[in-house]
Amino acid sequence: MQKTNLKEIAKTLGFSVATVSKALNGYSDVSEKTKKLVLDLAEELNYTPNSFAVNLRTKESKTIGVIIPTMVHYFFSNIIDSILKDCEERGYMVIIMQSNENYELEKKQVDLLLSKGVDGILISLSNKTRDTSHLKKIINSGIPLILFDKIDKNIKCSKIINDDRKAAYNAVCHLIKNGNKRIAHFRGALNPQNSIDRFLGYKKALTDNNIEYDPSLVYECKNNNRDDFVEGAELAKQLMIDHKDNVDAIFTVNDLISIGTLNYFNRNNIKVPEEIELFGFSNWFMTNVTTPSISSVEQNANKIGKKAAEILFKELEQKANEEEILYETHIIETELIFRDSTSNKIK
Amino acid sequence: MQKTNLKEIAKTLGFSVATVSKALNGYSDVSEKTKKLVLDLAEELNYTPNSFAVNLRTKESKTIGVIIPTMVHYFFSNIIDSILKDCEERGYMVIIMQSNENYELEKKQVDLLLSKGVDGILISLSNKTRDTSHLKKIINSGIPLILFDKIDKNIKCSKIINDDRKAAYNAVCHLIKNGNKRIAHFRGALNPQNSIDRFLGYKKALTDNNIEYDPSLVYECKNNNRDDFVEGAELAKQLMIDHKDNVDAIFTVNDLISIGTLNYFNRNNIKVPEEIELFGFSNWFMTNVTTPSISSVEQNANKIGKKAAEILFKELEQKANEEEILYETHIIETELIFRDSTSNKIK
Repeated sequence: MQKTNLKEIAKTLGFSVATVSKALNGYSDVSEKTKKLVLDLAEELNYTPNSFAVNLRTKESKTIGVIIPTMVHYFFSNIIDSILKDCEERGYMVIIMQSNENYELEKKQVDLLLSKGVDGILISLSNKTRDTSHLKKIINSGIPLILFDKIDKNIKCSKIINDDRKAAYNAVCHLIKNGNKRIAHFRGALNPQNSIDRFLGYKKALTDNNIEYDPSLVYECKNNNRDDFVEGAELAKQLMIDHKDNVDAIFTVNDLISIGTLNYFNRNNIKVPEEIELFGFSNWFMTNVTTPSISSVEQNANKIGKKAAEILFKELEQKANEEEILYETHIIETELIFRDSTSNKIK
Repeated sequence: MQKTNLKEIAKTLGFSVATVSKALNGYSDVSEKTKKLVLDLAEELNYTPNSFAVNLRTKESKTIGVIIPTMVHYFFSNIIDSILKDCEERGYMVIIMQSNENYELEKKQVDLLLSKGVDGILISLSNKTRDTSHLKKIINSGIPLILFDKIDKNIKCSKIINDDRKAAYNAVCHLIKNGNKRIAHFRGALNPQNSIDRFLGYKKALTDNNIEYDPSLVYECKNNNRDDFVEGAELAKQLMIDHKDNVDAIFTVNDLISIGTLNYFNRNNIKVPEEIELFGFSNWFMTNVTTPSISSVEQNANKIGKKAAEILFKELEQKANEEEILYETHIIETELIFRDSTSNKIK
């Protein structure tokens, strides 16, 4: 049995589809008699106007769009997980798109979401995004936009972030407390704000503890997600070539790089933490299952997703009530998780 | 600047919204003169009809719905990854929902997707799903339905699966080839088809190799995803209590259980593979980073997602051409990945 549609009702009654549609939507230029005929038959055939039609009246699609750089990623899948749960409870549906760190694609996806008439858009920007005209387009369309994790400080909208600089600072201070002086940093790509902030936090921790900053101890990763594991191993190898007996610890911009690094050390019988300590970032589930387990920074991805959804729905309500929307920036707290890849575990 | 809408155009020209809408949609009961006025102004204000309106004409939402048990899961995030990429290329958007292994929620989500007028639906069923009336409802609505991974054999629709029984059979035969006779199985919950098939494959491998099946070597996991890691460690402990010197290897229903098991063995100085061999299932990225790395079954999640999307779009085309839709069941090949948790690595 096919779902009844306007056409069938129109055909049965000998009206035009337009008349039936107008009758169902209560337009004034359709006689009460016609309306009754249409509504009675619609009920008889238990016609349910699909939400695209309903949307024309309510101007609400009950759908939001989310763009993330990548899906196969513990941090992002946890954020999506809590966004989905929150929207589920509010009866909203979520269109998910991944930019694959590709600016052109991200831009195209924004246009698609706008053409779809979504009620709001949540984005974590790709590493390649410089031009932000597509974000301004969202704002100019009067659609609430929330940026999370990878943001652009100059865009006038609400933002949900971690304090990456502070988190990195605390992690490196812990390595210093453990007696490490020569601390290497496997940093992320040069552009993304969070990779810059983690580097700056690393640097500040050194200077605040009167340890001279040595640029030769800083190595850059290209940040290709799953390839970070391979890159981490390569950087560990290079670090051993450059500084074998002159490095005490490594702070990496993410966990996958730490895991690749540990993998190289395990294969080459370099003992962690005895010979070299290791501190990751993001507290991916995997850091818990490596041998030794890896100390890391918990970013509370679920809280980031939950807060992003919460702020979006707050702004949707303000918009509905024609109130002024005051943009907020929320900083989700991070915590240091101490495991076996660092020496004294302060609990 | 707010996006122009029908109302503004109507107001500016002094027509009713209905007239403007009908003019834009080319209804015959609007004069050519009116149409021209409306279309010219629409162009001038660069009005883009939103896709919900367009949908009323084309009856295509260019949106598909996907329901999976959980998002924070390497296997499912890889499937979603390839579904998103495939839909992206075809200009389709994807609404993603997670049932959290909850049948009632899965049922509600199907209704939401149907009310949304999605063009097609892809589902991997929750472990709790017995009643399939919600799936029949999709089929009765004339919306293409594709089941993948966790399916119900009795539903008349296309299905994309692995041959779980064969994959488990091959994995256990490999353990036997390695000289193991007392092989334990940490199985999944009693209901899901793939956990049943993996158990049956394990059992058949034993009998085909004249090894007596010993039910006391089979332990059940509740399959709560991330908790499997903890459960794996508990089951390993119990296995050592029950069979310490009388078990050679373990085949686990998924990798997370293998990883929890390995974690327990590492903490208790039980050497893998020397004292006991370990074979997982799914080839999660993590099996590559543990020490030792864990042999596993590659399910080719990306191929499952790609094929599911491919079949869906094929059926959408057949539907559009009013051709008969012939349901297909595709079996995606699996491969054994040999790592350090099993002895002789046959390449």
